[in-house]
Amino acid sequence: MEIKIIQEKLAKALNNVSRVAAGSRASLPILNNVLIRVDDNKVSLTTTNLDMAVVSFLPARQCKNGVVTVPARLIAEFVGNLPKGEVVEINGTEDKVVVKASGYSSTINGASAEDFPELPEIDVEKVVKFQMGVDDFKDGLSQVMIAASNDTTRPALTGVYFNTFEGELYLAATDGYRLAERKFISKVNSEVRAIVPAASLQEVLRSLNDDVDEIEIWFDETQVRFRLGDIEITSKLIDGSFPDYRQLIPKQTEIEVGLKKDELVRITKLAALFAKEVGGSITCEANVENGNFIVASVANELGENKSEIKATVETDGKVTLNSRFLLDALNALNGSEVEFGFSNRLDPVVLRVKKADNYVHIVMPLKS
Amino acid sequence: MEIKIIQEKLAKALNNVSRVAAGSRASLPILNNVLIRVDDNKVSLTTTNLDMAVVSFLPARQCKNGVVTVPARLIAEFVGNLPKGEVVEINGTEDKVVVKASGYSSTINGASAEDFPELPEIDVEKVVKFQMGVDDFKDGLSQVMIAASNDTTRPALTGVYFNTFEGELYLAATDGYRLAERKFISKVNSEVRAIVPAASLQEVLRSLNDDVDEIEIWFDETQVRFRLGDIEITSKLIDGSFPDYRQLIPKQTEIEVGLKKDELVRITKLAALFAKEVGGSITCEANVENGNFIVASVANELGENKSEIKATVETDGKVTLNSRFLLDALNALNGSEVEFGFSNRLDPVVLRVKKADNYVHIVMPLKS
Repeated sequence: MEIKIIQEKLAKALNNVSRVAAGSRASLPILNNVLIRVDDNKVSLTTTNLDMAVVSFLPARQCKNGVVTVPARLIAEFVGNLPKGEVVEINGTEDKVVVKASGYSSTINGASAEDFPELPEIDVEKVVKFQMGVDDFKDGLSQVMIAASNDTTRPALTGVYFNTFEGELYLAATDGYRLAERKFISKVNSEVRAIVPAASLQEVLRSLNDDVDEIEIWFDETQVRFRLGDIEITSKLIDGSFPDYRQLIPKQTEIEVGLKKDELVRITKLAALFAKEVGGSITCEANVENGNFIVASVANELGENKSEIKATVETDGKVTLNSRFLLDALNALNGSEVEFGFSNRLDPVVLRVKKADNYVHIVMPLKS
Repeated sequence: MEIKIIQEKLAKALNNVSRVAAGSRASLPILNNVLIRVDDNKVSLTTTNLDMAVVSFLPARQCKNGVVTVPARLIAEFVGNLPKGEVVEINGTEDKVVVKASGYSSTINGASAEDFPELPEIDVEKVVKFQMGVDDFKDGLSQVMIAASNDTTRPALTGVYFNTFEGELYLAATDGYRLAERKFISKVNSEVRAIVPAASLQEVLRSLNDDVDEIEIWFDETQVRFRLGDIEITSKLIDGSFPDYRQLIPKQTEIEVGLKKDELVRITKLAALFAKEVGGSITCEANVENGNFIVASVANELGENKSEIKATVETDGKVTLNSRFLLDALNALNGSEVEFGFSNRLDPVVLRVKKADNYVHIVMPLKS
């Protein structure tokens, strides 16, 4: 196997795939490796952690076919530290590669490609495809992922639910205490109901860079593939059923408060300082008479806190929330004016950007 | 006690002192607190971890005398999150403070100032004083501190040795494997030999900001005080004797190699990737015939590496070093052309910026 390629391109492609190589956590040592394959002047670099695989494709000239695996981080760091502009030469044999540039030479020990795990094949004939702008997808996915659970005893909640409904594609996530849903405007012709692991989506987010404008998403029965420029990320889907979440989002709330997001963030942070002692519990109160919104917290040991800001309020009301969940929700809202809707002390709080209907975030109150 | 003061000033002063408050590690809970004292319109904020104390002075008007202590990080974060430009009002009683600004109010529980540890008093009549430019001090101190030890079984090596020699002030540090020494040009009239804890100097470095041009350093028998603008940092000295380090610095070396720093850093990093497996061991070789300098490492499992760069070489030679120590030394050299001097395989390697004589860094070779 032989490759000659300019340092920048190789360094970037190795960097794209080396994160997934499992490092010292690997149960199978070969999962630390990148599979380098040359096939008719096409170079592909592949890593996998068994749940997902990342492949980066590179155009190259003067190649000789072959395949080898070597530790991904080592070769990525080695090539990354070579000077820009150098032509890097990779010569691979059965279980090692020699990496050369002018004045630089390394032999990196690897392992036979035969021991590298089989990669998932997606059935290209049967996939359901979606396509969307990278910026829109990136924003929307970030807004939703924040609500996914870390609790692996309920696997379905550790993913993001891609689902079509009335001709639109929605992404949703919930950890049982809060829920986020983002609508993607693009009209869709196909149907999908699939839970994608949040860990795989983190990798997709990290791989999205300015070089790519569009992302393609392919689903088959058990897998999803994200195609972004020269990178393909294929992940298992989570096998399970996602809660019927739409019924959990209140159609309307009794009390609607209009607020400036920055101000609400500020007073929530102030209350959160004291709320540490009481499990994050803060009380939010809408006051019609003074036209304001009050956030307060009381801690026995640390002390207590109360802040008020101007608000558009038509009905009095009070609700107790976890300060971190409220801050997470506010950070996910893309807009300076927000709507804080609630009913009684036990009904979910609904947060949206004023007059925007493509994103909703709900937070369950704490008992107070 | 009462203070009225603009948010920015108070937030900055609280931030300056709150780092030293010991957080949850404190053996004495009151060490988490900041002592707020008002005395004739002068406000001082003090924190201590028993080894050192930081005081930040603030001018304020409309004050009422008094003293109180409250958790430093809590009040620093609270005030730091208030809007800029607000006038913040602090009302302190025996063991709590009420902090107010328009729309914001908090009660922070504290503790009586009587329980706050006595602060070290320096004997102002008997101190030895030095004064120098902040930028020079900052650069020089950073260059030296890197060589200080973390090993608390040899306390004298965990500090930086301030010492006068032939009318100049020197700072030196060594962990037994490497040694760094920086000369400060300013002619001095007083003598000093004092070991200042590296931890206290870290705090001094963090407190140096653009507002201050000059730093004053006062020594008495057992303590040192750094005066920088409105901040005073007082620290115990380390009780012990510093090695007679001057004799360890070779007057000259047999082999002098001239190198570009960036290139040497690059090839040292490349070798370090492989050297992880062999305790950081890399070999450096000067070759007259090819006019180059070679850095190599050999690891059984990972593979091996060899890089060469152009160099000014007059004598052949080879030495084995710890890659991390070499990288630390190179990072501490302020210049693009460096001199790498060595003699035989067991004598110290001497690193300097070409033609600069105010800083020297020596590294002991590894046995090879």
